Amino acid sequence: MLLPPTQHSFMASHSPRLLSLTRRALSSSSSSQGGVSLVQGASRGIGLEFVKQLLESDDKGHVIATCRNPGTSTGLIHLKDKFADRLRILPLDLTFESSIEASALSIKETYGHLNLLINASGILSIPELLHPETTLNKVQKSSLMLAYEVNAVGPILVIKHMWPLLKVGGGFGTARSNAVVASLSARVGSIGDNHLGGWHSYRSSKTALNQLSKTISVEFARKKDPIVCILLHSGTVDTDLSRPFQRNVAPEKLFTKEFSVQKLLSIINNVKSQDNGKFFAWDGQEIPW
Amino acid sequence: MLLPPTQHSFMASHSPRLLSLTRRALSSSSSSQGGVSLVQGASRGIGLEFVKQLLESDDKGHVIATCRNPGTSTGLIHLKDKFADRLRILPLDLTFESSIEASALSIKETYGHLNLLINASGILSIPELLHPETTLNKVQKSSLMLAYEVNAVGPILVIKHMWPLLKVGGGFGTARSNAVVASLSARVGSIGDNHLGGWHSYRSSKTALNQLSKTISVEFARKKDPIVCILLHSGTVDTDLSRPFQRNVAPEKLFTKEFSVQKLLSIINNVKSQDNGKFFAWDGQEIPW
Repeated sequence: MLLPPTQHSFMASHSPRLLSLTRRALSSSSSSQGGVSLVQGASRGIGLEFVKQLLESDDKGHVIATCRNPGTSTGLIHLKDKFADRLRILPLDLTFESSIEASALSIKETYGHLNLLINASGILSIPELLHPETTLNKVQKSSLMLAYEVNAVGPILVIKHMWPLLKVGGGFGTARSNAVVASLSARVGSIGDNHLGGWHSYRSSKTALNQLSKTISVEFARKKDPIVCILLHSGTVDTDLSRPFQRNVAPEKLFTKEFSVQKLLSIINNVKSQDNGKFFAWDGQEIPW
Repeated sequence: MLLPPTQHSFMASHSPRLLSLTRRALSSSSSSQGGVSLVQGASRGIGLEFVKQLLESDDKGHVIATCRNPGTSTGLIHLKDKFADRLRILPLDLTFESSIEASALSIKETYGHLNLLINASGILSIPELLHPETTLNKVQKSSLMLAYEVNAVGPILVIKHMWPLLKVGGGFGTARSNAVVASLSARVGSIGDNHLGGWHSYRSSKTALNQLSKTISVEFARKKDPIVCILLHSGTVDTDLSRPFQRNVAPEKLFTKEFSVQKLLSIINNVKSQDNGKFFAWDGQEIPW
């Protein structure tokens, strides 16, 4: 418990005076505790690597890792052995809002706040269910709906339920001035950059995630919440997600997850208020909508 | 029946030689017949006005109007009285792909081709089901999914099933060089232009429609299909859709449907190959993604 229980109730009211008191208490109490980060979609691939690097880079920070079936993630189980005190693993199924709410409640009770939320989950290809389309003729309603549900709707509902915790947390206990929400989008979600076509379900789900994230960033800014909301493109990373599609990727453009996550964490750690609502590639370049 | 039955079978094969023969036959046979246009979402509002102006502006053109429940559209019934020979009304429920396929089959049997497809349907607000969100706190999964299904997925499935008919039709029988697919998007679907936030479900569904339409336009261009695929913003038009939200619209910015559809038809009628994949406002200005 990083905050005394009495401070939790402050969050419910969102009263500016009480929030200000909470932040002051948090500032003095948690400066030695490091930040509290949540990685959603952490069982493997880029999400798991985020958890690893967050734990290794800050010997005081706490990390919450969520995924659908924590028991089957050998990567998370291995990290839990090494970082028992600073890693918490929670089950979270993006397709059930009640599951997201349960995680938020659990995080609220244990930590009282959040400083970083990384939406790292994403689906591109699932045998029998979802195939990146090569032509309009192969576009199926079920694929469009599934990709949207998991890649766009799920991450947005996670932001919705973690919002009060991020508002309390801000940048306190970290080197940043703000809390950060970073959602993994993809360059193929850019409409302006779409010269190849195809991948209808995946593309449109990521484009919608971009719009939803931008929409949320506008509200954060208007309410002067201490939260910066950004979108990230990891590059093509050697993970299970990209494996079936790596054939046409030049070797120097196929990144290890270690390299990509280092770059993305550098963007997150150096984020400024004016970055709110933007879409960055791994190298810090902005990507057109 | 605008084409002899033997020409219909050409469409199934998509053989370049057969398609070329079909187009030549079509060119000579239908130059006096005007174009064949399909307006999807034609029961009222902008869609109904498109049907009316298409029928009035071209005394040879044929128009197919689709909506969920044709029997309840007094506007369409009235037009059918006046333009019995040139208006065909078909039931089409966007949420059932089989219903779209049935319409495509019926159009194929009667006309053999299409020169214009206007996706005019769209939902913004439905009592008990869908409300334009004023804050992230009010975002509901069911609303996000419903808006996506109707505003993005439905129109794309219509394009999918009408594609062979548009490919046969091209611009033959019209003053254009190409068939046109025009889908009604909205400026609030622009990410770059999103400075107000809110309306999460509607915004993201229109943004996804933009990406899907762009993706399709890339394939049309690559395959050299005689089809131009564009997105349109009608402005704020005085219809049932916008009525609950007109309070903050300056009178000179609230258009009649007659004015808006005149402007949009002018864009459609003057479309060039290089406009494929673009997003135009009622005044012809391109809207950023």
